[in-house]
Amino acid sequence: MVKSKVYIYTKTFDGLPKEGDLVIKEEDLPPIKDGEFLAEAIYLSVDPYMRAYASRVPLGAPYIGSQVAKIIESKNPDYPMGRHVSGYFGWRSHTVSNGKPVTLGFSSTPAPILLPVVKDVPPSYFLGILGMPGNTAYFGFLEICQPKKGETVVVSGAAGAVGSVVGQIAKIKGCTVIGIAGSEEKGKWLLDELGFDHFINYKTADLDKALSQVAPKGVDCYFDNVGGETTITILKHMNELGRISVCGTISSYNEKDGRILFELFSLVSKQIKMEGFLVHRWSDRYTEGVQQNLKWLQEGKLKTRETVTEGFENMIKAFVEMLQGKNFGKAVVKV
Amino acid sequence: MVKSKVYIYTKTFDGLPKEGDLVIKEEDLPPIKDGEFLAEAIYLSVDPYMRAYASRVPLGAPYIGSQVAKIIESKNPDYPMGRHVSGYFGWRSHTVSNGKPVTLGFSSTPAPILLPVVKDVPPSYFLGILGMPGNTAYFGFLEICQPKKGETVVVSGAAGAVGSVVGQIAKIKGCTVIGIAGSEEKGKWLLDELGFDHFINYKTADLDKALSQVAPKGVDCYFDNVGGETTITILKHMNELGRISVCGTISSYNEKDGRILFELFSLVSKQIKMEGFLVHRWSDRYTEGVQQNLKWLQEGKLKTRETVTEGFENMIKAFVEMLQGKNFGKAVVKV
Repeated sequence: MVKSKVYIYTKTFDGLPKEGDLVIKEEDLPPIKDGEFLAEAIYLSVDPYMRAYASRVPLGAPYIGSQVAKIIESKNPDYPMGRHVSGYFGWRSHTVSNGKPVTLGFSSTPAPILLPVVKDVPPSYFLGILGMPGNTAYFGFLEICQPKKGETVVVSGAAGAVGSVVGQIAKIKGCTVIGIAGSEEKGKWLLDELGFDHFINYKTADLDKALSQVAPKGVDCYFDNVGGETTITILKHMNELGRISVCGTISSYNEKDGRILFELFSLVSKQIKMEGFLVHRWSDRYTEGVQQNLKWLQEGKLKTRETVTEGFENMIKAFVEMLQGKNFGKAVVKV
Repeated sequence: MVKSKVYIYTKTFDGLPKEGDLVIKEEDLPPIKDGEFLAEAIYLSVDPYMRAYASRVPLGAPYIGSQVAKIIESKNPDYPMGRHVSGYFGWRSHTVSNGKPVTLGFSSTPAPILLPVVKDVPPSYFLGILGMPGNTAYFGFLEICQPKKGETVVVSGAAGAVGSVVGQIAKIKGCTVIGIAGSEEKGKWLLDELGFDHFINYKTADLDKALSQVAPKGVDCYFDNVGGETTITILKHMNELGRISVCGTISSYNEKDGRILFELFSLVSKQIKMEGFLVHRWSDRYTEGVQQNLKWLQEGKLKTRETVTEGFENMIKAFVEMLQGKNFGKAVVKV
């Protein structure tokens, strides 16, 4: 009998998640039946949404999340043994799946995806640039911001899994790109490796003044990963007919009250669009996003980086460090 | 020599405009030159935007606004004597124009429009349903909300010049329409005359509870004329992929601090679009909007109502009463 280790949501998060909020339990898995397969986690994903939607996860349930796993036993021809699969299996080491979507915590998830074998592409990329975060950047930026050549684009959370891809896509589209992140080291990466035009360290700079300097003609598109005061300040610099794609508000996820003092009239006087999205809106175009990002990756137009934490038992640590912005690019846990 | 009476912006508004903030001066008009015409105001418009943009009007300048005027002398063949014209001439009784746009206060205005003579259509309608407010409703609702048949639409400021048209267009498009306004008499008009499905009196009802009752399936489109707490409450009822067209925030115009406590994350989790606009965005389609509204008016699908204040000297009174929501439909001043 196969045993799976599973993180159970045990105590409601209060601020940043703590050891003890999630507790590892062992679970006996039944033998697989016809149509099922057994998969062993290789990489688990930690993403901001896991904190954002914590209130919707029932206590006592496995914690929500996706992973890349190796199929180690199969009675389903669509998921052959030895291949890799990505799926929203939750924070667990072993999973029995029938290849169909499952309802995990708060929402129905996409079906597990059998991963293609691509030369020079490690399977963990399918949790990042070739997975949900890559598609979040691709669709959430292009569809909502509709960037035009020569426009000025600001990205917050710029060194994260999504933001780092957004900024590079904006460069591909011929925009001037300003990245906001929280360390000089991240800034160096954005400027020297990813080709961003400007970097603002929100922890040390006066964002308002810095934007006046690096975006003297104003901001046309803002891809918002953080919310809070950053958004309020950037709004002041938005041009007429500016577009704000609201991907997340990570600055509020660990706060009791994440509301901001917002001047609604500024949307009218500058004709600004502000639109929130979830990437599943474009689930029927999932492959398009992955293929395009893969092409850009292979052409060297997109670069990526991962922050890998070793050990299933370090999931909480990896999760918290990602929420604190310690990661560069995609944060994953290697089992 | 023709003398024009002109309202001069004399004292910065503090809260609601007061007598003395705008002072009538007499101005000698020069004789008209080739290419010019002289027009005498018949109806002057009072609109919420005049208060919203007060801070951009320089003290000592004529106050901003549009009017319908009769051409009483002309040396411009495009503007023949005896015809009516609508133009952003400001709060004044007589105007010399060369038919070109002028910069008034804060922005360049459209050129004066020679009004067509339409049977049964009084010229004042070109300040309302067949003018800027009608086009604001037509484009601001249809283009931004993209309403679909069967959807639920909420309109605030529903008995105003713009809101009353938005609600009726929503009915034409097959939506369920909920109007929010501030008196039972307005509610009666919306329900009995204009065909709204539901009415909520924001002064006496608990908006949150009332919406749960009349919009049990949630709200798909919100056309926002008022901002403030009303917007916050309606956001709670918006459905996934809901669209908010932000036309104005009249609740904030007389306030020192019009900011609202806003939960940005709600835009993400429900994938809501919130977009502000100014009707001049669609100025190249101006005629389309007027023609469509005229057609609906002649077919009886759109109804309109005016609140007429008599006397040029009563402009401020009419302006304040409109800002207080005392008007039904379009507020105009008959000279």
